[in-house]
Amino acid sequence: MRTQVGIIGAGPAGLLLSHLLHLEGVESVVLEERGEDYVRQRVRAGVLENTTTDLLREVGLGERMDREGLVHGGISLRFDGADHRIAFEELVGRNVTVYGQQEVVKDLIDARTRDGGQILFDISETAVHDIDTDRPRITFRDADGQPQELVCDVIAGCDGFHGPSRKAVPHEAYDHTYPFAWLGILAKAAPTREELAYTFHERGFALYSMRSPEITRLYLQVAPDEDIKEWPDDRIWAELHTRMAVDGESPVLEGPLLDKGITAMRSFVATPMRHGRLFLAGDAAHIVPPTGAKGMNLAVADVRLLSRAVTQLLQHNDSRLVESYSDTALHRVWKAEAFSWKMTSMLHVSPTADAFQRQVQLAELRYTAGSRAAMTAIAENYVGLPW
Amino acid sequence: MRTQVGIIGAGPAGLLLSHLLHLEGVESVVLEERGEDYVRQRVRAGVLENTTTDLLREVGLGERMDREGLVHGGISLRFDGADHRIAFEELVGRNVTVYGQQEVVKDLIDARTRDGGQILFDISETAVHDIDTDRPRITFRDADGQPQELVCDVIAGCDGFHGPSRKAVPHEAYDHTYPFAWLGILAKAAPTREELAYTFHERGFALYSMRSPEITRLYLQVAPDEDIKEWPDDRIWAELHTRMAVDGESPVLEGPLLDKGITAMRSFVATPMRHGRLFLAGDAAHIVPPTGAKGMNLAVADVRLLSRAVTQLLQHNDSRLVESYSDTALHRVWKAEAFSWKMTSMLHVSPTADAFQRQVQLAELRYTAGSRAAMTAIAENYVGLPW
Repeated sequence: MRTQVGIIGAGPAGLLLSHLLHLEGVESVVLEERGEDYVRQRVRAGVLENTTTDLLREVGLGERMDREGLVHGGISLRFDGADHRIAFEELVGRNVTVYGQQEVVKDLIDARTRDGGQILFDISETAVHDIDTDRPRITFRDADGQPQELVCDVIAGCDGFHGPSRKAVPHEAYDHTYPFAWLGILAKAAPTREELAYTFHERGFALYSMRSPEITRLYLQVAPDEDIKEWPDDRIWAELHTRMAVDGESPVLEGPLLDKGITAMRSFVATPMRHGRLFLAGDAAHIVPPTGAKGMNLAVADVRLLSRAVTQLLQHNDSRLVESYSDTALHRVWKAEAFSWKMTSMLHVSPTADAFQRQVQLAELRYTAGSRAAMTAIAENYVGLPW
Repeated sequence: MRTQVGIIGAGPAGLLLSHLLHLEGVESVVLEERGEDYVRQRVRAGVLENTTTDLLREVGLGERMDREGLVHGGISLRFDGADHRIAFEELVGRNVTVYGQQEVVKDLIDARTRDGGQILFDISETAVHDIDTDRPRITFRDADGQPQELVCDVIAGCDGFHGPSRKAVPHEAYDHTYPFAWLGILAKAAPTREELAYTFHERGFALYSMRSPEITRLYLQVAPDEDIKEWPDDRIWAELHTRMAVDGESPVLEGPLLDKGITAMRSFVATPMRHGRLFLAGDAAHIVPPTGAKGMNLAVADVRLLSRAVTQLLQHNDSRLVESYSDTALHRVWKAEAFSWKMTSMLHVSPTADAFQRQVQLAELRYTAGSRAAMTAIAENYVGLPW
């Protein structure tokens, strides 16, 4: 098999890259180890930056998102038992859209299928070769278990944190593991609030969010080694009510649980994001804790750069953008890492913090809620810094 | 002896309180264990918030400050070998004044002396009694070693971190010690820059500041247990040149050292700041690391509140302000603690930070220097939040 760009991974990064390259007239093949149904239903991130929604509209992917997505003009910081709104639209004139990652993925698969794009699901034993040459190859077994080889001009590693691509790129790894995790539930219950509420409570962080007018998504800070068996549904609801109470009343409406799981909190950056003709994008190169809602948005930012760089290389034999790809991408990545770090540190109870640090944390929240400048700094990061 | 307000400590807090009370017609006596010469020459803080200079002018103490103080319209954050200015005047329409604490103290002693105020220097064995009654007493030995008793309506403990007053107030102590210290020098060398530069360098923090057009004040981050004998002058100058270089050139001009010492870095808050008729103000109740230049300014803010509260109590038998004194003061104290913490964390190399955290720190600095909102948040804290 032969293509111009071999893309490993059919998550938002790989699929969007394939779509963007197609619009530029560059051919690609997407390889994915999971099955199509799994990929279409994988629940992950859910908040799209304004920069992301602008891009998706620009490239013809905004139709269903604009119909079904929930536009949020702000978020709340909840502490001292009260809500303190950060009004994005008023502060920075922009907003975010709640539209699940799996919905973006469905739109992308549908667009690629409509445009005759090739996505091979259920492959295995993916490996990259000859990335130091201008004819890199990907070997794998197809859905029938037959060995295959895809010869490319460029390979894009969009295969997430656990994929094989990063291992083929000599890199420095910057890694930080947090002393807590998130216990998340998806509940069939109508949200009683219209916006996300990031809650700091002495018992730990909690997040009130929603996926649709019928589905609430709620999170609780728990220990990193927490056993989910210790959390029967009634304990989860009780803890949510306690942490999220506003003026003594809980805004949480209970409902049947559709999903329940524990997410580790990690920050990770691999630098550089390229070796030879192999380029990393999205989670393959960096991980953020979910507090800043930056994961999928960073993947989109990466492939926006990468599609341009690869197009310049393959259509105009101009390698300047591929040479600068890693530095340019990392510039945004580190700002998003810093913002995610700040949101995480500001809102979680750290088991290693002393009593002074906990008071300072509360003072920082109180200051933030009363300072237009501090709220603007959060808003401009949350809606997405300019490209 | 009998007075209305017994004030322990002739630092900026105690002396300013005595002056403010005098303006309201309330009598006080200031007791100080050190000698007058020592107090007049004790080099400490040097940056006055706009809120502080406004107050000092308002109460007739602005004349020499306005003549000799250096008005600064901004500071620089120095990192990546370049200066990034935070333009206070442009961002928040205010500024700060560099005018040494010892100059404020001299102005205050002169004003109290002119107005017939009583300041007893060189006392010893200071102790407070009967603070739960409305006739609290201070016992001490005077400069001649004679035992004395001062009967008061109210006692103000302005006796610094190591004074006896705080021990008499049952309190929660919030304490944080940093894993570094500052090595500071005062040099007879003309400053080559007009504003303070807060420098983040991989070898550690450094601060470029000045006390007058002839005197430069420079600091280096060192280990908390650093032995000053390990720092001969030439090592200090070499390290300053390395850390402070801008575009490869050092802005540091060498000169004879007038002073050299190591300052521990600590955050501390005692809450509440009052028990019965004993009120704490300034360093007696709270300590900030010097990075945010908040120490003396907080003392001024405390005694501004306290003078009003005590006046209301003694002249109008209205205890509402003394009842709320601690909460009101602590509201500002915690914001200043949070800002000092933020400036300290942002600019020092922490020996416990992992490689990821160090990169995030640099990313945070780079973001700050490019964000009007983030710079405004620093500016509004640095010049002094509104009362």
